[in-house]
This record gives sequence, structure tokens and C-alpha cells, in this order.
Amino acid sequence: MKKKIGVGLIGYKFMGKAHSNAWRKAGMFFDAPADVHMQAICGRDEDWLKQSAQKYGWNGYETSWQKLIGREDIHAIDITAPSDMHMEIAVAAAEAGKHVICEKPMALNVADARKMLAAADKSGVKHQIGFNYRFAPAVLLAKELIDKGKIGKVFHFRGQYLQDFIIDPLFPRIWRLDKSVAGSGSHGDLSAHVIDLARFLVGEFKTVTGMSKTFIKERPLVERMEGLSATAGTDVEMAPVTVDDATLFLTEFECGALGVFEATRFAAGHKNALRFEINGSLGSIIFELERLNELQFFSREDDANAQGFRSIMVTEATHPYISAWWPPGHIIGYEHTFVHEILSFITSIANDSRALPDFNDGVKCSQILEAVDVSIENGGWVNVGDI
Amino acid sequence: MKKKIGVGLIGYKFMGKAHSNAWRKAGMFFDAPADVHMQAICGRDEDWLKQSAQKYGWNGYETSWQKLIGREDIHAIDITAPSDMHMEIAVAAAEAGKHVICEKPMALNVADARKMLAAADKSGVKHQIGFNYRFAPAVLLAKELIDKGKIGKVFHFRGQYLQDFIIDPLFPRIWRLDKSVAGSGSHGDLSAHVIDLARFLVGEFKTVTGMSKTFIKERPLVERMEGLSATAGTDVEMAPVTVDDATLFLTEFECGALGVFEATRFAAGHKNALRFEINGSLGSIIFELERLNELQFFSREDDANAQGFRSIMVTEATHPYISAWWPPGHIIGYEHTFVHEILSFITSIANDSRALPDFNDGVKCSQILEAVDVSIENGGWVNVGDI
Amino acid sequence: MKKKIGVGLIGYKFMGKAHSNAWRKAGMFFDAPADVHMQAICGRDEDWLKQSAQKYGWNGYETSWQKLIGREDIHAIDITAPSDMHMEIAVAAAEAGKHVICEKPMALNVADARKMLAAADKSGVKHQIGFNYRFAPAVLLAKELIDKGKIGKVFHFRGQYLQDFIIDPLFPRIWRLDKSVAGSGSHGDLSAHVIDLARFLVGEFKTVTGMSKTFIKERPLVERMEGLSATAGTDVEMAPVTVDDATLFLTEFECGALGVFEATRFAAGHKNALRFEINGSLGSIIFELERLNELQFFSREDDANAQGFRSIMVTEATHPYISAWWPPGHIIGYEHTFVHEILSFITSIANDSRALPDFNDGVKCSQILEAVDVSIENGGWVNVGDI
Amino acid sequence: MKKKIGVGLIGYKFMGKAHSNAWRKAGMFFDAPADVHMQAICGRDEDWLKQSAQKYGWNGYETSWQKLIGREDIHAIDITAPSDMHMEIAVAAAEAGKHVICEKPMALNVADARKMLAAADKSGVKHQIGFNYRFAPAVLLAKELIDKGKIGKVFHFRGQYLQDFIIDPLFPRIWRLDKSVAGSGSHGDLSAHVIDLARFLVGEFKTVTGMSKTFIKERPLVERMEGLSATAGTDVEMAPVTVDDATLFLTEFECGALGVFEATRFAAGHKNALRFEINGSLGSIIFELERLNELQFFSREDDANAQGFRSIMVTEATHPYISAWWPPGHIIGYEHTFVHEILSFITSIANDSRALPDFNDGVKCSQILEAVDVSIENGGWVNVGDI
Repeated sequence: MKKKIGVGLIGYKFMGKAHSNAWRKAGMFFDAPADVHMQAICGRDEDWLKQSAQKYGWNGYETSWQKLIGREDIHAIDITAPSDMHMEIAVAAAEAGKHVICEKPMALNVADARKMLAAADKSGVKHQIGFNYRFAPAVLLAKELIDKGKIGKVFHFRGQYLQDFIIDPLFPRIWRLDKSVAGSGSHGDLSAHVIDLARFLVGEFKTVTGMSKTFIKERPLVERMEGLSATAGTDVEMAPVTVDDATLFLTEFECGALGVFEATRFAAGHKNALRFEINGSLGSIIFELERLNELQFFSREDDANAQGFRSIMVTEATHPYISAWWPPGHIIGYEHTFVHEILSFITSIANDSRALPDFNDGVKCSQILEAVDVSIENGGWVNVGDI
Repeated sequence: MKKKIGVGLIGYKFMGKAHSNAWRKAGMFFDAPADVHMQAICGRDEDWLKQSAQKYGWNGYETSWQKLIGREDIHAIDITAPSDMHMEIAVAAAEAGKHVICEKPMALNVADARKMLAAADKSGVKHQIGFNYRFAPAVLLAKELIDKGKIGKVFHFRGQYLQDFIIDPLFPRIWRLDKSVAGSGSHGDLSAHVIDLARFLVGEFKTVTGMSKTFIKERPLVERMEGLSATAGTDVEMAPVTVDDATLFLTEFECGALGVFEATRFAAGHKNALRFEINGSLGSIIFELERLNELQFFSREDDANAQGFRSIMVTEATHPYISAWWPPGHIIGYEHTFVHEILSFITSIANDSRALPDFNDGVKCSQILEAVDVSIENGGWVNVGDI
Repeated sequence: MKKKIGVGLIGYKFMGKAHSNAWRKAGMFFDAPADVHMQAICGRDEDWLKQSAQKYGWNGYETSWQKLIGREDIHAIDITAPSDMHMEIAVAAAEAGKHVICEKPMALNVADARKMLAAADKSGVKHQIGFNYRFAPAVLLAKELIDKGKIGKVFHFRGQYLQDFIIDPLFPRIWRLDKSVAGSGSHGDLSAHVIDLARFLVGEFKTVTGMSKTFIKERPLVERMEGLSATAGTDVEMAPVTVDDATLFLTEFECGALGVFEATRFAAGHKNALRFEINGSLGSIIFELERLNELQFFSREDDANAQGFRSIMVTEATHPYISAWWPPGHIIGYEHTFVHEILSFITSIANDSRALPDFNDGVKCSQILEAVDVSIENGGWVNVGDI
Repeated sequence: MKKKIGVGLIGYKFMGKAHSNAWRKAGMFFDAPADVHMQAICGRDEDWLKQSAQKYGWNGYETSWQKLIGREDIHAIDITAPSDMHMEIAVAAAEAGKHVICEKPMALNVADARKMLAAADKSGVKHQIGFNYRFAPAVLLAKELIDKGKIGKVFHFRGQYLQDFIIDPLFPRIWRLDKSVAGSGSHGDLSAHVIDLARFLVGEFKTVTGMSKTFIKERPLVERMEGLSATAGTDVEMAPVTVDDATLFLTEFECGALGVFEATRFAAGHKNALRFEINGSLGSIIFELERLNELQFFSREDDANAQGFRSIMVTEATHPYISAWWPPGHIIGYEHTFVHEILSFITSIANDSRALPDFNDGVKCSQILEAVDVSIENGGWVNVGDI
């Protein structure tokens, strides 16, 4: 008989919806190796919780995360609350013996991330960090091609994460633009994903040097749902933007490859443009998140007169996770990466195997983010190992 | 208080999964105007039904569709059974006073389709036909641009639906290749979608002339799930392929535009390549299903030196249905078109408004399909109105 | 020592410039197997000829094509005059023992084309027809891949030639829109190229059925250089448009493949969009003239999980003609196809080998064009062999 | 009457061919404002010169550049010799009162570049530096859009120049890989172009920090034409590679924009992939050299529901230089940028106007290249103004 896993979810905005959907669909589309019970969703707004628990498929709700963690029918905690709460909740959950999956960025700084890892390691629970893009079938195919040596020795990693949602100066000073809550701007929010993918595909970072900028220093302080267009106000209170609008950095990987990373929320026309390219001695790979069902692959082993970047539709039954979904060419979307992520977490609990990426990966990513920050402050190269 | 709608789903393969998911997510992501109860799923394999009713979110199951239709707690029937059963079920459901949504192709022939429409009209129930691609946000945006006159008077419609899943001669003789069950091959399965989109965007067809071909006349008769790769068998029983592998036709629309349509399952490299382009006096529009979050638009009204096909990411909150999903650039997939379709059906029941596309659209599409068939038989032009 | 070839060019507009450039560059970039002398350019406007002979690199000029043909120092005649003059000039040139290269469309009708072929055959001169797109390196690579069996047995040919230069109703009634001079509209001007490429790559046409339309029936009769934007005139004299604005047709090839062809000058946003796709049992090929340095190729023989359309930059030294030009990735343009065409003509003269494509190909293409015309008139299928 | 300009060209390899062709076509396709005489080509290999002077359209040749410069019938010197000879020739030419156009990179270092500028300024001759990509119509359109404020205030410049021609370890140690002759590797050869475009479009650089690498430290020392594939040799003499295989750097522009630059010869699949993207407050622009007839443009001023990157075919008569070439959609190639460049040089001589880009631009570019070199040596940020 399958193991029973009771789940509690903390946070209910954008990420809460994505995770709720993922918990539900993991069981609907896959033969999950455990019997998942979506026990409770947790947040501060009780009215909202009442309405949405059922809507999102949760059996109940809690308004105190401490109470949620204390429940015996709950074995796993899914943290999608704002970044400044991650450490406290994750440590408490681990100490209470709950498996933990936590959204990225892992914590506000490396020190906190390390506390989370230590707590999880000590209690022996499963821990996973929410780098969902690792679970895009095209990214997994990239990993497979690289592991099979299809692109040979890696020379270059070229990563970008471009958005434009705050390009309007009247876009409000939401919490994501407040360092005390968000920890970081484009760097922690966007680069974090690209760094994780680079580690996944190319390996560890040795040294970094970076730069960053806040193009718009203050913004209207109005209550708004994120993602809406700007409001024009004349007598609106302004508040300072305390995070970076854009961060760029160079890196050398342990394997000798060179890397360049650019994250910005000021690239007009780019909505969610995570893009990376890897060049190796035998071929190259390109991935673009806005076309996440495709992977571009160039092979120097093709016939000399017929080499070219080929655009692989990663929607065949032979591709990772796809056989559970739809026939070839029937594309999946952004939310599916979370389904795969949650399925992976369920599997690690059910099989008592290591979750990947786990808090070790979260700490490593935080180290790199912080190394870039130090480099920006000091104006020179920083060894990631020194952080 | 919201109206209650009890739903019964007939059929549980590929389309059953897509529809189950749609019924569930319509309520989770949207404020549906009715209170939907997923009462029962219906099929012949009781073991399968037992397992999957719960998995797919249905409260129960039935092994007789007649019984399903007879249940008082069920107000709407969703038909995803094979094409040859559509007519009988739909007529019975309508006569029993149930609202009906039916997968395409509507029926095996125009006569049957007309019976379905007549039954539904007589009983006054809501009826909808499953042309789900109308509900892709990019297609709805195309409609909006056309209705606003952005491409002016239409000159050309260029439609293709290219697949390659049966290109291997050892791919088995599945039911889709048997005329007595499927009714038609590429024409009914693929062209039907493109014809409906053409009608939706450009208007009615006046005349058609066509051609078709079955490239591979017989195939191994082995039990197989569709979509899997071919098996090599030597002493396998062969069966004739009685449907078209490819069908092409030309048309003149009532509005004077010229159209060309091509459907095939023999276009190597194309997995689900529904593509259409519309050229008008002021601009053009291109849609490709494999990149369904994008719409290409050319406007002759742009600055003379800066005109070009622009690729619109149809993932903004201002785009149809998107605000319920994810932030800009976070793409949706194939299955989302069904969620919108089901939501539309729910809305027509809740608001007592006409569903679109409905059985009238299904009949019209069938007429065009059949007119092409007649043309192929007779070798000349056929007036659609004569069918 | 190399053979000497004296050349005379008739016509000096758009095509005259392209051919002059080609004659000049063939010798500059290639080791041509003959010693070419650009003896004279011929037209009616002496002032223009005086200026441009030297500019375009011709040693002199003539105002009478009869006189040009009569010159002993001229061994080859290049005809770029309007279509209605092709037959008379070509026949006369052949009878005078001159090698002839003639722009497409070959003649106003099949009968004239056959006279040209007969005259050339009788006199034994080399003859070539100006289907310059055969000489795009990407097209030649397509031919090579097909001949090597890389796409297997052909199922589909899908050809389009889309332009929009006359979409404005105020665009004038230029000679290209007058049937008595141009012979045909989009069909003869645009389809002719695509038909030739289809014959080159897939083989002979068996049957055709088509349709055509003139969207704008009359236009201002003003003197204008072609290609300029429209003039707004109120009291301008109007003249009827007597050629087709768009022509579409279906075909079955001798090899059993199905073909669809569409030529139009009313496809907003498309400037010179000759595009073809060929689908075979093992792969597919796509070519787009506006990106003529690229060829898309899909191979079912690639690894199962890594199949996709690959975009080959046809600019490697291993690709046809490229080693004479620039390093990889340094693209060539439209005019280079003529250089290769002229080089091929020079080679056939120097080596006394058959030119390709020659007047036989021109006649075949004319037959198909005319078969489509007959089909349009009669409303049914026409055997190309009956023309 | 038009001014007479006698021209002498030094160097006759790849660039010599490109420049010869450009001098010839400038007069053929444009109404050049001067009467150009291609007097002599100059190099060391007399046999080659004899053959090619005529082939390339030069009236004669010289084997001594000093003698060439001394000729009274020559008013302008075009330098395409290897980089290490630029300074000496250019200074001598300027002192002899000859106008000078010089290929990039301008010189082996900033000091030499400044000597060239000083000499040219002192003698008052026209001087131009060979950043030919400024003359691609798409780049000029980008400039026009930026100058008209279409993309607003610039936030980001993202430049890449990716090639792969030396990725094979057996590719020989050609002169381009020898620092004493070439001065620099990917940085001077490739970044130089991108830096110039960035200066042209975004403005001056303030600070830089960079990194570089030589992936393959030694290579076979065999005589070879550049561009050919590698030879496999076992007893071949090896020589060290003394230039960079890849160089990356970050920059802040004077205007506050952030820039990232990457040049490499180790990006498998990229042949001549100069690519830049500029993001501004109102829009974005993307250019790719391998598709040099296209410019991508995103405008936040388009209708909210119809914004997207549009691909402009920069082949309309309204686009820079195009009216002299071919009709819309008939693309031009790499070599055409040189024709425009040479025409611009002729014009500056004829009209006694400043050539652009001139030696000032060459010096500025050299400063930036060198600032990056210093940064790589020192490991920190360098003010470009300090070089």
C-alpha cells in the first residue's frame, strides 16, 4: 500500500496557486508513489482562505503557520510565503519533523540558508528547493544530451532572464522592490533560476564579478496586485526602491567554462525571457522559457553540409514526463514544471531518496548570489568558495 | 446563489482526460457563474472507471451511457466517445433535456449532424461543439483584431494542419484509420478544426474543390495505444486503411477571399502543426498551434519604415482568459483551451445564452467537409450550399 | 587557352541590372571556363544606354536588337526584355547561331515557348531559361539531400510565392498588370518560379486544378517606376487590370506526391516570400527566399529524442558556389543567384554541355502554367500532358 | 564636373576582395559624387597581382606600398593589410596627402592608433575606419529609430559576436592567432565591431571590467588558407596561440545604460553571429548579422494588446541605400555593407565632409579594447578615459 502524505501549504498568492494546482495534478496525471492528502492551506486572510481552500482543492485551512506545522496529519510543508519568512518557517518545520519544500530564493542571505539546511539535515527530513525550471522537459533533455557527451567539453554558458513588468516609472513600489522583504531584486528573483540551471548543467562556479543598477529610485506606494499596469497618481506617496533593477555578472566555472549572466526587469518586450545557451566542443544547446516546449541543439557530429541548430519539440513520449500528458506537439505550459517538481518531492518522500534540487543547492545558489553582491560592493573578482 | 450543474462525461481516453481536467480547472482558476458538480464518468471498462473516477475528480461512474443520461442529478452531458457514437448519444441526451457538449468531428456525416442539431433545438437545451482551438487566447485576439478592422478586407486564408504520427508504414491500423468508426481521416480529424477557425475568422465558404490520398493502403492490425512508435512484425495480420492520409482543397469564401487547406498525417517533423494565415488589405495574421501563446500580426498602418510581422506574446492580463492564469510570459498549454471551452459552456447554461460554437457550427463544418468529399469524387467544384 | 564569348544583353531595367552585375561578377569571383566579353547592351532609350553601358560594364550599346544579334563579335544573347518580346528575339538569335539565355516567363504561351525550343534545337545553340532560384546554394543543397535519399519518398510539396506590392488600390496599372504585355500576373511571374523548383526537386506534374482572382479590377494609368508607393489621384485615367492578382492550384505529381501552389501579390507583409516545403518518408525540407542563406531540414534518422527542424546556414565552403564568396556566416544576396546562373551558362558554352534549366524546362513550366489556366476556365482537373 | 579620385588598395586576401568589389559596385549601383579610378592594387606576390588586378577591376598593381603611396595619380589609399602594418602605412599615406580608409582593428594598440589620427589630422586628409557593419541598412534603421526616440532612454546594450571556426583543436595556428601580427584575438577582431556599433547607437563607454581565455593553447603550424577545415597531422610542428579565444566584459555607458559584450570563436553552430539588443524605456531593438536584412523592433507605444517584437525586412525603398539595389524582399548580402562604406568614403572626399566612422572612432574603439585588456590584467574596473 502507498505511503500517506499529508501536506500543508503556506502562502496563497501567485505561487500558492501554482503549487496547489501542482499538488492536485501530480496525482491526476501521474501514478504518484504516495497517497497525497492536501490537508490545509495557510495564510493570514481568513476570508480568503475560506473561499479558496475548497476552490484550490485543500481540505481545510489554518491562519497560523505554527499551528499548521504542529498538526499530526501533516507530514510535509510547502513554503511559498515571502522570502523573509522562509528561514523561520523551514527551520521550525524541519525541527517538527516535517519534510519541507521551499520556494526560491531560499532565504534573504547565505547565513539563513545554511540554518535551513542544517535544521533539515539534523532532523533527517526530505528537503527540496523550488527551482521548478529544472523540471521543464526541455531542460531535462538538455541535461541528458550534456551527460551523454553530445556537446562535448563546455566552453560557454550565456544566461539571461529578461522581464519588463516594472519598466513604467509609475509601477508601484510593491514588496518585491523592498529589500527588507524581498532580499533582492532581479538578482535574487531572476538570476537565482539561471544560476541553478547553470549549476545543474555546467557545474560549480569558481569566481564572479558583477554590476547592478536601480534605474528608478522611487515609486508610488500604492496597494496593488502585482502584474497590473501602472496607475498615474499625482499626490501619491513615494517610497524608495531598495533592490536592484538589473544585475549582470561574469563567471568562470570550475570546469573552465566562461559564463555571463544578466537579469533585468527593464528589457522592453521581454515578459519572462529566461534564456540560456551552452557552447561545447561538439555542439550547442539553447533554451528559452517563453517557448519551453522547444530545445535548440546544434551538433558538430551531423553531416558536414547539413549542420544547423535544430529546434526539438520536446513533446514526444520519449521525452521526460511527457507520456503522462498529451500527444506530440500538444504543448504544456509554465504550471507543468511545478507538477513535475511536486511529483519529484513526493517521490523522494515515498522512496526515502534525496530530493533534487535540495537545500544544498539552495545554499550553493545563495552563495553565488552573495558573491556577486560582494563583488559589486568591492569592484573586483570574488571566489565563490570564500562566501 | 449560483445555479447547480451536474455533469456526466462519456469517454475516457485522451479526450476524456482533457475534458476532466478542464471541468476541474474551470472552477479552480475562474469564477465560474455556476456551481459545477462532476457527477459521473461513463465508459465500458469498469475497472478503469473505478480507478480513474476519483483520480480525475469525478464523484462516481456509470457503465451505461443511457443510464447516465437518465440520472436526475446530471444536467449536462459531455461526449468524448468515438465519432460513430456521437449522434445517438447526443440525440438521446437532448431528448432527455440535458445540455450537450460534443467533441468534434460532430458526426460521421451531415445527415447525422443535422439530427443532433434538430434534437437539441427541439428540446431547447444548450449545445456546444468541441472546437477548442477557438478558445486559444491568440485565436481570440485574432478575432478581435479582425473585428476591429485591423487587417481590413480579407483576401486570403491559408490553413494547414500537419502531423506525422502515422508516417511509419508499421504504425498500426488504429480505429482512427478505419472509416466505419472514425468517419474520416486527416480531413475530419484535422481539417475540421481549420475549417471551423476559418469560418470563425473569415466567414462562410461558398465553393470548394479538393483532392485526397491514402499513401499507405494497409497496416498491421495490432492493439496499441495511439501515439506510440511502430512495431515491427512479420506475421502480423494486415488491415486496409479506409480513410484519407491527406486531404487538400481550395475554396472561395462568401466574402470573396480565397482559401487553401491542407491536412496530412504525412508531414515529417510536424507534430501538431495547425497553422493559419490571413491576409487582408491592411494587414495579416498568422497563428501556429505549436506556439499557441503567440500571434503574428503585420499592420500596414505602422510607420512605413518599421513595418514587420510582430510576434505578440498573448499572455498579458489584457488578453482573453489570461488574467486567471499566470503573469505575462508564463505560457499556458494545449489543455487550457479546453478549460476555456468548458467555462464557456458553463456560462451559456448559467446565463441561458447561446453557446458558441454550437451544433449549427458543427453542421456547417460537416457540410464543408462533405462538400470536399463530393468534389473529390466528382473532380470539380462543389457549392457548399448544395450539401 | 580559354574560349572567347562575346555577350549582348537585351533589356536594361531591373533584370538588366541584375544580369549585368552577374556577367561581371562571374568573372571576378569565379574561375570561369571561358573568357567573357561584355560587348553590348541593347534597348530603345539611347540616352540611357550611353550612360549606363559604361556604368554597368558593357563595352558598347545597340538600339536595335536585330543589329545586336547580327554582330559577329557576339556569341551569346541574354534576353531580359518584356515577356511579349521573348519569342521573336530568341528565335532570331538562335537562327543567327547565338547561344541564348532568356528570362522567365519564357513566353506568353506554350506555343511560343515551343517555337523557341524548336529554333534553338535546330540551330544547336546552347539555351538556358532564367530560373535563377535553382542556383541559390540552399536550393542546390536541397537537391543534393533529396538525391541522396535523405528525405525518402516524397509525399507533399507545398509552395507559395507571396508578395504585397500592389495591395494598394492606387498602385498604378503598370505593364505587369496588362495581359497583352505580361501574359500573366502572379501566376506567370511568381508561380513559374515555384513550379520550376518543384519540377527540379520533386519531378513532373501529372494533373492540376486551380483558381484565380483579380481583386482590384482597375487602377490608375500613370507612368511609374515599379516598386514605388502609390500615388493618390482623383482625376487620373483608370485602366483595367487584365491579369490575375492571385492564383492557387493543386497538383498530383508523377511520383504520387501531392502539391499545393499559391501565388499572390495581395499578402500583406510578404515582400518576396517564395517558400516551399517538401515532406518525405524520412524527412522534410523548407526553403524561404527572404532568408535564402538558410535551409531547414528535418531528419527522422536523427536520434529519437533529438529530432527537430534544423536551420542550416548554407554558407560553408562545402556548400555549392560558396567557396568563391565569403567565409561562413557572411551571407550572400538575391543577386548572387544570377551570378551562378550566368556562370552555369558560360560553362555550358565553354564545355559544350547542356545548360540547365534549358528551354525544355521552360516549355514544361509553360505547359503547367497553361494547364492551370485551362483548369480555371473549365472548372476541373486537367492533365498536364494534354497541353 | 565630378572630382576624380584615384584609388590604391593595399592587401588582397579576404578583405582585398571585399573592398575591390565595393569600389566597383559603388559606381555601378549608385550615382557616386566622384569619378573613381581603381588605379592599383598592392601586395607582395607579383604573380598573384598580375592575375588578379584585372580580375578585380584594377588598372594596375604595385609590389611596394611606399611606391603606391608615392603615385600622383592616386589620391586615396585603402588599407586592408594585416593589422601590424596599419600604423606605418596610414601615417605615411596621410603624410603624403592621401585620403585613407583603413580596415579594423585600427592598430595593434591605442598609441599607434593615436599616431594615425594625429597624422591624418595634421595633413587634413579624409580618414575613415572600416567598421562596415554601421552601413548595414538595418543598423542605420536602428540608428534612425533611436535618434527619433522610438525606444526612449536606453537601459541595456547586449552584444555578442560568436563564431566557431577555430573550435577544432587541429585548426592551424594562422596569423590571426599570433599576437605579434594580429594584436588580439576574438577581442580585437570581433568585439571591435560590436563596440563600434554600441558607440554608434548608445554612446560612449565609461567603465569596463572583463575576462578572457585561450581554450586551446597551441595548434599545428601549417600553411593554410583561412576558413578551411582542420587537417589531422601527427608529426606537425606546434606553435603557441598567443591571442584570446574568447573575451567577455561588462560596461557602464556614459548615459547610464549597462552593457555586456561577449566575443568568442568557440561557440559551436555560430558562424558569424554578431548580435546586439538594445532595451530602452519605450522599446527594444535586436539585430543579427546572419540575417542582416532584418531588424527586430518592439514598441511599447503599440496598442496594448498587440505589442510584440516585429521583424522588419529592411529592404524597402524607404530604407537606407536600398533604392539603389533591388525590390522589397530581394535581400542584399555581407559584401554590400562595404559598398555603402566605400560610397560614404567617396562622398566625404567629394564633398569635403567628415567621414564617419573616422580615425577618432578608431581610437575610441581601441581605447575601450585596451581598457578591457587592462581590466583583465588587473582584475577590476577600468575607466575608459584613463587609457
